[in-house]
Amino acid sequence: MKPDDFRAWGYRLVDWIAEYLEHVERYPVLPAVQPGDIRAQLPREPPQHPEPFDQIFADFQKYILPGITHWQSPNFFAFFPANNSYPSILGELLAAGLGVQGMLWQTSPACTELETHVLDWLVDLLGLPEKFASRSTGGGVIQDTASSATLCAVLAAREQASRGFSNANGVVPRFTAYASTEAHSSVEKAWRIAGLGSAALRRIPVDDRLALRPEALEAAIRTDRQAGWIPCFVCATVGTTSTLAHDPLRPIGEIARRYGLWLHVDAAMAGTAAIWPEFRYLHDGLELADSYCFNPHKWMGVNLDCDCFFVADRQALIRALSVLPEYLRNPASESGQVIDYRDWQIPLGRRFRALKLWFVLRSFGAEGLRTLVRRHVALARLFTDWLASDPRFELAAPVSLNLVCFRLRADDATNQTFLHRLNASGRLYLTHTRVRERFTLRLCIGNLRTQEHHLRAAWQLLQQTADQLLSSPPRSLQ
Amino acid sequence: MKPDDFRAWGYRLVDWIAEYLEHVERYPVLPAVQPGDIRAQLPREPPQHPEPFDQIFADFQKYILPGITHWQSPNFFAFFPANNSYPSILGELLAAGLGVQGMLWQTSPACTELETHVLDWLVDLLGLPEKFASRSTGGGVIQDTASSATLCAVLAAREQASRGFSNANGVVPRFTAYASTEAHSSVEKAWRIAGLGSAALRRIPVDDRLALRPEALEAAIRTDRQAGWIPCFVCATVGTTSTLAHDPLRPIGEIARRYGLWLHVDAAMAGTAAIWPEFRYLHDGLELADSYCFNPHKWMGVNLDCDCFFVADRQALIRALSVLPEYLRNPASESGQVIDYRDWQIPLGRRFRALKLWFVLRSFGAEGLRTLVRRHVALARLFTDWLASDPRFELAAPVSLNLVCFRLRADDATNQTFLHRLNASGRLYLTHTRVRERFTLRLCIGNLRTQEHHLRAAWQLLQQTADQLLSSPPRSLQ
Repeated sequence: MKPDDFRAWGYRLVDWIAEYLEHVERYPVLPAVQPGDIRAQLPREPPQHPEPFDQIFADFQKYILPGITHWQSPNFFAFFPANNSYPSILGELLAAGLGVQGMLWQTSPACTELETHVLDWLVDLLGLPEKFASRSTGGGVIQDTASSATLCAVLAAREQASRGFSNANGVVPRFTAYASTEAHSSVEKAWRIAGLGSAALRRIPVDDRLALRPEALEAAIRTDRQAGWIPCFVCATVGTTSTLAHDPLRPIGEIARRYGLWLHVDAAMAGTAAIWPEFRYLHDGLELADSYCFNPHKWMGVNLDCDCFFVADRQALIRALSVLPEYLRNPASESGQVIDYRDWQIPLGRRFRALKLWFVLRSFGAEGLRTLVRRHVALARLFTDWLASDPRFELAAPVSLNLVCFRLRADDATNQTFLHRLNASGRLYLTHTRVRERFTLRLCIGNLRTQEHHLRAAWQLLQQTADQLLSSPPRSLQ
Repeated sequence: MKPDDFRAWGYRLVDWIAEYLEHVERYPVLPAVQPGDIRAQLPREPPQHPEPFDQIFADFQKYILPGITHWQSPNFFAFFPANNSYPSILGELLAAGLGVQGMLWQTSPACTELETHVLDWLVDLLGLPEKFASRSTGGGVIQDTASSATLCAVLAAREQASRGFSNANGVVPRFTAYASTEAHSSVEKAWRIAGLGSAALRRIPVDDRLALRPEALEAAIRTDRQAGWIPCFVCATVGTTSTLAHDPLRPIGEIARRYGLWLHVDAAMAGTAAIWPEFRYLHDGLELADSYCFNPHKWMGVNLDCDCFFVADRQALIRALSVLPEYLRNPASESGQVIDYRDWQIPLGRRFRALKLWFVLRSFGAEGLRTLVRRHVALARLFTDWLASDPRFELAAPVSLNLVCFRLRADDATNQTFLHRLNASGRLYLTHTRVRERFTLRLCIGNLRTQEHHLRAAWQLLQQTADQLLSSPPRSLQ
């Protein structure tokens, strides 16, 4: 491809993306495809000769686009959002054009320094504890996802608890970890990856609000200690995936301090809310944490992948993750004056992800991000009011921020059918969870483009679908 | 940002990137900045109000660009390359615009199916063993980097060797791993992350060509077995980072089979060469491997991040990595008819990286990629000839593919000064390694834009710098 072809196709794709995002609600949110449908249309044999880009792009539109789940649709209410935004797309484009690999400070000083700088900005913007800033003992780093951040936290905790021997001699699995029954699956995955075993992750019961019960945590730690285990790590969640419940950080942090555990706080989606001082109660006690993460790629308009991971003691992280072969040695690293982010993460190579975060923070400003959060929280309250007005529905959990968990006042099978019919319409996408064993629908409002009229249309569809479902004969007669 | 602003700025960035890449050699490859220089120019306080994009982009040009290491420069000969290309940049742009998160088939069927499809194409294009194709027992997945691929391989090996108990109960560190003294640091990092300890990674000596000695591997396995260890994992390298040495896969694979070890093959850079049948000798014996990876983001013109990781038995990988919470359950996954790539990797979320790989494979075609590889290998041979013509230089290792390891016939300190002066010129970027303890310069030719005249200019600079260095008084007199 020649530079002028790139220019022409670049313009064309920019136009296509602008058009796509302006009208993304025209597409069914979930595509009506069956397993294998996409592949069946693609040629079995790999291309031998160069193909013109117009052919490639035509195939994208013909074969790929119909198989896309439209995460950017204003009618996407599933899981948590994964937003993009125009400035963020420009950041990805520019990063791709520069093609920088920022594993070491030396391999692109600006890639490293801008990352440190914007993560320090986030400490200020979200009112995070000062120790998480690079100007203090800690610092922030961009990870791909919160799963990787949790894994890094686990590895630092493991290394600290083993007094530095775990890397050299391996870890005898005597360490225990703690997280609530509502914590994300990535905690279990990280604990397994670290060789410590799912069975040594204690799932602590939750209270009525689905938040971890600190006294149960303390009891579990004491029981484990008495049985010869070494309590090592606790993950508290600010905004669980199922219901956005938030664990009480202060009592958990005090227990972690008392028993010498590493406290990691996972605020993947909800963390963004702290841009409003009124939501900082969610972070009360965060100064007791050893590490913290949240995902600007969820609710801050930054393209996936962008998880921001902060540690209070950067040396603890580096001790856990640094391996230094000769071919990576360089004067800047040896001066001790620079950050080499390769030692803050699992992979070696890294993209220039700070660029999109910088573009978003400056394009929106704290003000723009506050407006976004406020609007989504208000919409969730509105939806809650609508639910309350229809006796066929009930809330399944306390409403927190921008997530509403609800169900039909009916059995699980009916709710399952309800969800299936809603999603099959293509007019929205909701996902489910279980709250106290019961099948529960989740509606998360986090898309930049979601306006009241989208939510109203969703509510109408919910009501119509409920009408049809509840008036049809019982399943056993069908 | 409004759609029309995005259009205007999108065009502008596309133009800027085209201009940048056409003239990237105008920039000093390594920027002349000191630690902290970039940050010192950025405002300490985060932005409160939205800023216009022209201000942001002006700041990029003024503050960030001068701190970039230009990986896309034709004069970048350091490490291994990390290429982008026009079709790949378009792929990143389109993926950013779609903003898809492909953790499950259901969360974007086309994201998953296109990935499976292009990775099957690569099995054909590179002549990889059929078992690595999804139509067989295995399959391929895109990881961010080879480090993550190696970690996934380690975890699958650990789980298999522990007969499924390592995830549940943790791993008592009795497992041993094997890799040559020349293998990449990511093998040690993965082994440590898995809780198995650096000390249990046996570094096997190499032969004259810096390739792992199979008989030494077998001896180490036998010794470990007798001492009660459980040999579990061996990593063979096709193209080591220091010198592009390649381990003999067939005898290593036979030993791995005999003793029940998982064989992972790391061909991060060199794997691309297999697009030429004449280079497939590098993969001789690969059918004995359990997993394999190479990085299209190194030598195939695909933007970082794009590591292709193949396994012979996909169930072994999934058993090691799958954790299934309620909120990720869905009918497609439960049908067993789809791939959910979240279970093939460390993170949960994932970008639509197959798009850029698909764009590159079709835009270049196998033919275009072959031309690229051929040209770089020819340039490395040319450079080797030049070296041979100047008695002040010597080869430090056998020349393989597109990497030349060399030094001045002088002591380490002189070679270190030589490298420092070369890089300080800004006219190229080389990195070093140690070969048999001796300081060695590496020149890797892998950039899409590198032509003979760039290499000739590099050679002239090397000669001139050698002239100055070798004619100046010895260091002790300075």
